[in-house]
Amino acid sequence: MNYQALPDCQFGRQDYSNKEDAMLGIGLIGAGRIGSLHAENIRRSRACRLVTVFDANQNSGQALASLHGASAVPLIEDVLLNTDVSAVFVCSPTDTHVDILRRIAPTGKAIFCEKPIDLNISHVRNCLSVLEERSVPFTIGFHRRFDPHHRALRDAVHNGAVGEVEQIRIVSRDPAPPPISYIKRSGGIFRDMMIHDLDQCRFLLPEPLIGVFAKGSSLIDPEIEKAGDYDAATATFWTTRGVTCSIQNSRRCAAGFDQRIEVFGSKGTLSLENVAVNSLSLGDGSGFLSSKLPEHFPQRYNEAYRLQLEAFVDAVSSGRQPDTRGYDGLMSLVLADAAEQSARTGSSVVIPS
Amino acid sequence: MNYQALPDCQFGRQDYSNKEDAMLGIGLIGAGRIGSLHAENIRRSRACRLVTVFDANQNSGQALASLHGASAVPLIEDVLLNTDVSAVFVCSPTDTHVDILRRIAPTGKAIFCEKPIDLNISHVRNCLSVLEERSVPFTIGFHRRFDPHHRALRDAVHNGAVGEVEQIRIVSRDPAPPPISYIKRSGGIFRDMMIHDLDQCRFLLPEPLIGVFAKGSSLIDPEIEKAGDYDAATATFWTTRGVTCSIQNSRRCAAGFDQRIEVFGSKGTLSLENVAVNSLSLGDGSGFLSSKLPEHFPQRYNEAYRLQLEAFVDAVSSGRQPDTRGYDGLMSLVLADAAEQSARTGSSVVIPS
Amino acid sequence: MNYQALPDCQFGRQDYSNKEDAMLGIGLIGAGRIGSLHAENIRRSRACRLVTVFDANQNSGQALASLHGASAVPLIEDVLLNTDVSAVFVCSPTDTHVDILRRIAPTGKAIFCEKPIDLNISHVRNCLSVLEERSVPFTIGFHRRFDPHHRALRDAVHNGAVGEVEQIRIVSRDPAPPPISYIKRSGGIFRDMMIHDLDQCRFLLPEPLIGVFAKGSSLIDPEIEKAGDYDAATATFWTTRGVTCSIQNSRRCAAGFDQRIEVFGSKGTLSLENVAVNSLSLGDGSGFLSSKLPEHFPQRYNEAYRLQLEAFVDAVSSGRQPDTRGYDGLMSLVLADAAEQSARTGSSVVIPS
Amino acid sequence: MNYQALPDCQFGRQDYSNKEDAMLGIGLIGAGRIGSLHAENIRRSRACRLVTVFDANQNSGQALASLHGASAVPLIEDVLLNTDVSAVFVCSPTDTHVDILRRIAPTGKAIFCEKPIDLNISHVRNCLSVLEERSVPFTIGFHRRFDPHHRALRDAVHNGAVGEVEQIRIVSRDPAPPPISYIKRSGGIFRDMMIHDLDQCRFLLPEPLIGVFAKGSSLIDPEIEKAGDYDAATATFWTTRGVTCSIQNSRRCAAGFDQRIEVFGSKGTLSLENVAVNSLSLGDGSGFLSSKLPEHFPQRYNEAYRLQLEAFVDAVSSGRQPDTRGYDGLMSLVLADAAEQSARTGSSVVIPS
Repeated sequence: MNYQALPDCQFGRQDYSNKEDAMLGIGLIGAGRIGSLHAENIRRSRACRLVTVFDANQNSGQALASLHGASAVPLIEDVLLNTDVSAVFVCSPTDTHVDILRRIAPTGKAIFCEKPIDLNISHVRNCLSVLEERSVPFTIGFHRRFDPHHRALRDAVHNGAVGEVEQIRIVSRDPAPPPISYIKRSGGIFRDMMIHDLDQCRFLLPEPLIGVFAKGSSLIDPEIEKAGDYDAATATFWTTRGVTCSIQNSRRCAAGFDQRIEVFGSKGTLSLENVAVNSLSLGDGSGFLSSKLPEHFPQRYNEAYRLQLEAFVDAVSSGRQPDTRGYDGLMSLVLADAAEQSARTGSSVVIPS
Repeated sequence: MNYQALPDCQFGRQDYSNKEDAMLGIGLIGAGRIGSLHAENIRRSRACRLVTVFDANQNSGQALASLHGASAVPLIEDVLLNTDVSAVFVCSPTDTHVDILRRIAPTGKAIFCEKPIDLNISHVRNCLSVLEERSVPFTIGFHRRFDPHHRALRDAVHNGAVGEVEQIRIVSRDPAPPPISYIKRSGGIFRDMMIHDLDQCRFLLPEPLIGVFAKGSSLIDPEIEKAGDYDAATATFWTTRGVTCSIQNSRRCAAGFDQRIEVFGSKGTLSLENVAVNSLSLGDGSGFLSSKLPEHFPQRYNEAYRLQLEAFVDAVSSGRQPDTRGYDGLMSLVLADAAEQSARTGSSVVIPS
Repeated sequence: MNYQALPDCQFGRQDYSNKEDAMLGIGLIGAGRIGSLHAENIRRSRACRLVTVFDANQNSGQALASLHGASAVPLIEDVLLNTDVSAVFVCSPTDTHVDILRRIAPTGKAIFCEKPIDLNISHVRNCLSVLEERSVPFTIGFHRRFDPHHRALRDAVHNGAVGEVEQIRIVSRDPAPPPISYIKRSGGIFRDMMIHDLDQCRFLLPEPLIGVFAKGSSLIDPEIEKAGDYDAATATFWTTRGVTCSIQNSRRCAAGFDQRIEVFGSKGTLSLENVAVNSLSLGDGSGFLSSKLPEHFPQRYNEAYRLQLEAFVDAVSSGRQPDTRGYDGLMSLVLADAAEQSARTGSSVVIPS
Repeated sequence: MNYQALPDCQFGRQDYSNKEDAMLGIGLIGAGRIGSLHAENIRRSRACRLVTVFDANQNSGQALASLHGASAVPLIEDVLLNTDVSAVFVCSPTDTHVDILRRIAPTGKAIFCEKPIDLNISHVRNCLSVLEERSVPFTIGFHRRFDPHHRALRDAVHNGAVGEVEQIRIVSRDPAPPPISYIKRSGGIFRDMMIHDLDQCRFLLPEPLIGVFAKGSSLIDPEIEKAGDYDAATATFWTTRGVTCSIQNSRRCAAGFDQRIEVFGSKGTLSLENVAVNSLSLGDGSGFLSSKLPEHFPQRYNEAYRLQLEAFVDAVSSGRQPDTRGYDGLMSLVLADAAEQSARTGSSVVIPS
């Protein structure tokens, strides 16, 4: 057995510090659900490491930092001044984003900002101007763009698998409504839910959406209506050429987290079905029972978040701007606003270009 | 019902006489594609028999009659006066329907009329009044209502499988556009194609559709646009409660005859997928290739047509009015008209009740 | 409306007799389940007609004959002497087949015989010799060969879709055991059930099976064991080249009539899945429930029986021998016998060639 | 358990020290394909960390160690004497396992050993005796037991979803044959491939397999035959009660890494289908093309390896013996040996208990 015949030699302990040096140092602002999700992926990555965490709730920040061997800091400035931090993840509530982005801009640190940048379009425009002026490496969190399934769909569309795109159909439904407190701050179903579908349409289509007719419904929970939001929405968007996108959203879906998209074109139809939790089925006298849907987005888009992180770190480390730009966040918000306006007025709305 | 008042008549042939006596005698007006399809099903049925055929094209009528051992006649009156004929199938071009129905009405014979009764709603209303006045057993050919798959869907919805219905999604696409000559007479994509989907919605929903926004597109063939029609259409209908129905139609589909419907409700989602031609799949380095879609509606709805015939014959033979009424044909046309109007004006349209 | 402008001319009533003349006249021996199934398909066919029916139980014969406008006769000779009868369907119990075939042989009538010809191989050989001597057009009822799904599989295999065939897997399971009385006469699970799978293997493979190891089990009903039969069976067959066929049978299957086959080869895998009753699925918190299996063989192989009839009538009417020969019935029985012997002895068995 | 008796030790680095203290220190022997896979999962885990790596090939060991910030050592003893190492992963070639296990046994360190322990059953028995004598926490790498899909299957079977198990069907096929050099050392298709299926049967069944008939084939590559191995295998195993397990293996599968299992019982059928790479399908005139199979086991069982690691670390950290025992490795080898013997002799073989 020749493994015994190896020469007797010594290897020193690998120095962690060198490796860490090569890893992009990340500061995290916001230690809530989505911040925690990013922190876990940062820890697993070979290309970056979590340096420090800030959260308005000091205990939350400390708990998350401890979990991943990072420091917790009491002030956002502590993150911004930390020279080990090369990139900042902004995962705080939406209404804090613009202020934080403006404070990060002068530091030269790269920024990953959870969507939306802001619910007010002119605030978004102004904020993006500031970032652009300083050429801040910036991306916005449209994680679905990195989901391997959606990526396969996009690649197939771009490679001409369906020829000219003619009709898109999207279903996205959450398993259960979020807390009313979230709904009150989220900007409503078009801005917190349909916005992801709208980014998908933009990601898939070679041409801009120019008009929309949307219908909002209150079918699930009267409290949502009282909070000024719809709990279900249906919209048709279209392009100059006459391509249409039909979207159905619901804040509650008995089957689970329902995420499907279909692209119909001159040469074929691409369907992205739900991803099953497992590949098991049970056949008996009732028929065949197959797997449930994923519980919610962290289960469904687990790998998408990881790949999104890797793509951001890779771009920043290579001195490139990330592919998903602030403009993408802005345009999806413009589309969501137009849908909301259509639902409120009962008329179709022209998308401002 | 006065079709029972027909004068006695004698059947000559020995062996079959008793059996034929018990079989509903059918006269067929129109020996085209759909008429031929009905004739074949009539021949296979134990409950009815084809007595006589009229077609404006004498050769077509004779050919079909010969194939099934029936007589061919040169005048519609020959059908109407034939005492062996207890029920008439009206399968002639749409613009002849109203005149023919008015001529059948006084004979007391039962009527199966292909949809639509007419493209003009007031003509339809007037014609239906005449039929109702005389209590003519009458049905309209919405074959999908008899398709075992659609029937299973409807039964499941009515049995509460999804709870309260909230969102419906329908795709129906033809494999290839019909001849331009057909398009010029058909009333357009909303009246010849979407009308089936609209009848489906009415079949499934416990409440009426009250509004629509529709978008027509010209994506496939400029000749269709020149003929004044769209070749693709997308529509959203809604009810007072806020239930929405999203429909996508196309006159061309590379994958074949695409017919899907999904009903989403408070307790679950019912999906009616396409019916595959066979249950074979081939796995290799490219992935798994499974069966094509049915070629077109005769292949897909073969069994539906047969069951539609049996249900009509059974109702007439039992002295009952068929379940699918003239009113169903009228209401679907009203919905299709509203969609057309929306597409032409760019505004949503209130459905006249 | 030009349908009114047709010239006034008369068409005589089509003469049924001419049409019937052209239709192959069929005599049916045995009015049980399978005989009734054939009778229904004969009635629906344009190419043949049921002339007369014999059944040992006179009431059964009369009932079936009446249903289809045929005569019922009290003696097999009445069928054989009937000059309107060009082909005889032998659907009586297995142990009567050989005697009946021998009596038909001299009449020159074509024969469709339900499988198996007999449970005793030397009886089968002798009987086939008699039929061959007289060049009687003869076929044996292996309906699966005509099933469109199985046909698609066979065609794909023969067209090289999987390259060289290497491994076959077959499952066939009945929903529930037949009556013990049937089991006592059927020859057992290998001869009444696996025999269909064995004919499938022969239909698919370019080379003969040369050996088998089979295992019989008594898992379901002790009464079946008492009757001397197994209620479940698993077998491996092989060819000289080393291709293997794995077969699993069961007399009871909670999910329904389970019929699957898979052909694995050097270039890919062809899978023939079960045919669902409908294309509906229901998604909710439990997962996705899709359609049941067909209830039993008449539901699953409905179309196969019809196509088998048409192929037989077409061959006989054209003066050709049907494709499925008596030899096919013999060889499948040889394979089934070898499997039975293996199960009884616990050793592998060489297939006699 | 004596691995707790390890001398105290100090960790130097500031930030991580507390965290590392709590993490199980792992030494890796063998830095090949499977060792690298484990190393990656160890790095991602919150519960353990890679301390040191030994490989007979010094460069391989160093490369893997560097990648994960661990040390590389020139002698196995360096691993065994390292007090930071609480558990050793044995991922070296099979023929080195027994010697290495015997050397680890006295150290009190826990052991994760890749299967098989050895190809010689008496060597395995002796080695396990030594480990048991010293109560070494020990597990063997049957990763499929931790795959969420297989786990769901097992749980469903144990919860009675199919009632009494009656028939099992397993397909496992590799995309392409391994190098001939591997085949020469692996013990052959039954011991390196079917052994996983046999462990699955044992995992699923409440009763032991008592007999086997197996057939080996040489269909793919004559070099494999020259090396004394089969490249395809089919086996039937059975229990006293008459439950049968049909297994088909192939060393080459055009469709990819094919892994399916089906459990048929008195109340239903559980089918574990392949896991698709993505949920996309493309429909066009050829039919519907859906996703490829996973490339090979690291892609398919990625999550299974991770969960296997976590379960091992959790058991060891909690002072429990891991669930998968050395006995499981032994019994699967006994079954594989019996299958090999059956294939070589052409007779069924009784499994030694």
